[in-house]
Amino acid sequence: MSIVEAVQRLQLAYVRAIDDDRLEEWPGFFADTCLYRVTHRADYDAGRQFGMIYADSQGMLADRVSSLRSVNIYEAQTYRHVINPPWLVDDAPDLACVGAQTGFLIARTMRTGELSLFASGCYIDRIDLSGSTPKFVEKTVVLDSPVIDTLLALPF
Amino acid sequence: MSIVEAVQRLQLAYVRAIDDDRLEEWPGFFADTCLYRVTHRADYDAGRQFGMIYADSQGMLADRVSSLRSVNIYEAQTYRHVINPPWLVDDAPDLACVGAQTGFLIARTMRTGELSLFASGCYIDRIDLSGSTPKFVEKTVVLDSPVIDTLLALPF
Amino acid sequence: MSIVEAVQRLQLAYVRAIDDDRLEEWPGFFADTCLYRVTHRADYDAGRQFGMIYADSQGMLADRVSSLRSVNIYEAQTYRHVINPPWLVDDAPDLACVGAQTGFLIARTMRTGELSLFASGCYIDRIDLSGSTPKFVEKTVVLDSPVIDTLLALPF
Repeated sequence: MSIVEAVQRLQLAYVRAIDDDRLEEWPGFFADTCLYRVTHRADYDAGRQFGMIYADSQGMLADRVSSLRSVNIYEAQTYRHVINPPWLVDDAPDLACVGAQTGFLIARTMRTGELSLFASGCYIDRIDLSGSTPKFVEKTVVLDSPVIDTLLALPF
Repeated sequence: MSIVEAVQRLQLAYVRAIDDDRLEEWPGFFADTCLYRVTHRADYDAGRQFGMIYADSQGMLADRVSSLRSVNIYEAQTYRHVINPPWLVDDAPDLACVGAQTGFLIARTMRTGELSLFASGCYIDRIDLSGSTPKFVEKTVVLDSPVIDTLLALPF
Repeated sequence: MSIVEAVQRLQLAYVRAIDDDRLEEWPGFFADTCLYRVTHRADYDAGRQFGMIYADSQGMLADRVSSLRSVNIYEAQTYRHVINPPWLVDDAPDLACVGAQTGFLIARTMRTGELSLFASGCYIDRIDLSGSTPKFVEKTVVLDSPVIDTLLALPF
């Protein structure tokens, strides 16, 4: 499998876990020490490092899933991601890692059945390919719009 | 061509035929004896076997196309599918077949020009790769929303 | 890299340049002498050759970018394309060229943060693969809807 294929397979497995409501699998796509951020284009382009959502370990990601489960968000909405092929970026300082940028759209279906375009954006990822399965070392979700309500959102 | 590539090519040919209004080609993507169902996530997850649309032969699919043509639905709307790469599922009981799950969005354009997000979901397919062209033995269209009007819908 | 992979990489680079607001790179995806048209399905199917937008050289494409920059359109909206894999069409009269058809959706985010499905359609392309980088010799953007406001639109 080529690097592009391995990265695409990881991205696909990642969005499938979210779309299929297997949120407990979500932290496992990340390295133990990792960076997960949700931000938007204007902040990202301006180099602002904070984000609407921020986690720097698998544990924090697992906590987020627990929170979502406890408020029963998972019953209220489902996502459907469609993703572009990844674009590899070879500015990796670490040879075991590869950078990838992957455009996406997310459609959201509410429990009422209402379907809408919820989010669009790009994953800016750094992926560790050295282990038996690729893991996200860093995933920055750059949303195109700044006005998305992330309080009750599923993982992007 | 790898199995993933063969499956992706089939999926792409399938959605192109629908989007290009070549509906008469649609039954030909299926094996003579086949199962085509349109259902939604809640019913599918609950194991309910019926669907909003159900056909178990190429002939029934051809009848559906004839019906659509006779009410001139094809003039009233067009679809545009975008699909994810297929995810292969190797639980196939039959060695000649492969299981594949493929996420999709469908945008719909009405004759008036109005464009909207019409449907999102996942194809749960079983594909026969033994012949000269791959064929769907089983295609279950699992829509994310239960409230889609399928009465006048084009094939999903 | 296979021809399909080379074409997909070109398509991805093309939509990324637009989505990332690197419009100045846009003309460089085309051959010096080229044809770029934006039309819609009804006109295209009827064989009408004009389009809502028309350019037949890199220079005209560069002029269009300058115009867009001068009215600051690039600040008012951003696009996000998601594309299907390309479908190769081997009716190329010229051996160095390949035909490709690629379905797409475009989500648009306004400065206000409002996100909507802006356009759907298909790229009908002829691509020159003989040089060091593939170039569009011809790109016809066939939109599904005839009522899209192209006056202030970014490149499709």
